[in-house]
Amino acid sequence: MPATTLTISSKNYSSWSLRGWLLCQLAGLEVEEIMLSVDDPSARAELLLLSPSFLVPCLRHDGVVIWDTLAIAGYLDELKPQAGLLPAEVGARARCRAISGEMHSGFANLRSALPMNLKAHYPGFKLWAGAQADIDRVIEIWRDCIASYGGPYLFGERLTMADAMYAPVCLRFLTYDVALDPLSRAYCQTILGWPALQRWIAAAKTEPDELEELDAEF
Amino acid sequence: MPATTLTISSKNYSSWSLRGWLLCQLAGLEVEEIMLSVDDPSARAELLLLSPSFLVPCLRHDGVVIWDTLAIAGYLDELKPQAGLLPAEVGARARCRAISGEMHSGFANLRSALPMNLKAHYPGFKLWAGAQADIDRVIEIWRDCIASYGGPYLFGERLTMADAMYAPVCLRFLTYDVALDPLSRAYCQTILGWPALQRWIAAAKTEPDELEELDAEF
Repeated sequence: MPATTLTISSKNYSSWSLRGWLLCQLAGLEVEEIMLSVDDPSARAELLLLSPSFLVPCLRHDGVVIWDTLAIAGYLDELKPQAGLLPAEVGARARCRAISGEMHSGFANLRSALPMNLKAHYPGFKLWAGAQADIDRVIEIWRDCIASYGGPYLFGERLTMADAMYAPVCLRFLTYDVALDPLSRAYCQTILGWPALQRWIAAAKTEPDELEELDAEF
Repeated sequence: MPATTLTISSKNYSSWSLRGWLLCQLAGLEVEEIMLSVDDPSARAELLLLSPSFLVPCLRHDGVVIWDTLAIAGYLDELKPQAGLLPAEVGARARCRAISGEMHSGFANLRSALPMNLKAHYPGFKLWAGAQADIDRVIEIWRDCIASYGGPYLFGERLTMADAMYAPVCLRFLTYDVALDPLSRAYCQTILGWPALQRWIAAAKTEPDELEELDAEF
């Protein structure tokens, strides 16, 4: 049987790689990581925020290839229903899908103004108003979910795919010193305590700096 | 029992409204349509291509609210598995999710350069190179699917959610007179023959022109 692999790009910069990887962790699927070189045009475009890549994250499992983050989530939920990537109750399940979909297709200003960069910290970072509207919407989503399901995660006592989808946003809020209400701050801290995420962050911090390499060409 | 409703905006311009509506049609779910006024800030932003709206499409069914297109697809697939929104075979299912996900999060250049406009036709329309790269990727996706599953639809003999996701692109290709190879042209014609889509197009053509109204404010 061929190995199960997950193709990713930079652990420091690629928020989609992180989401795909966290989903595999949630599903308890052991994957061999394949790091895409920054010389690959698709990885370059993604890291320079020029376009989403359809090459990362890409899961290969049991002869099946899945190259979109939500598609990976849907595949893993069917493969490992007991992992609870989606909540069990139909309304929660629908909301979990909807907020995951919002993160998948939206928040363009947040993405471009606050790119993920786990090695960096910018105290007092000045936010653009367009990014603030995205941040407000993220916080509204978190507040609604935690009010409805009681926390500490978005859908209650267990991590779901929604937490994996929003985890890079928690990290961005910390990197760019975004002012948060106590509830949102507590949620970010809860996510930061996720052991799998801690392992990813540790690996990101030892990575050579690919973006500096790319920037040098401009 | 409360009515099942689908909130949509313009039938002429809103490609996301069309996708959500086609998904309900595929699932055989009768919905009462609620048209969002162009005065609504969320509808305005969507129609002016300023940002995706999280208000359309929005399905309300059986006390559950679902406001993202892929989330609606996932919900309907679980509600009506016999409708075959996703193909049955695991590899096809994964690919159907992946290409639907690509349409959901990507193709920004195609979206902004060729906005859906069912009333218009622009013979000899001059394409920007960035949009051409998106078009090439769409055609690659179609060719791969039709080669793998035999057509006439993306996953064989039955319409799936992927056809609903790509239907607005077929309409854009016709509106903007995009040069297509015979296989892609045939696929567009097949989709154009979808009776539900024909009903939508007929309704779009009788709609008052909201975008002219909005443009007048700039």
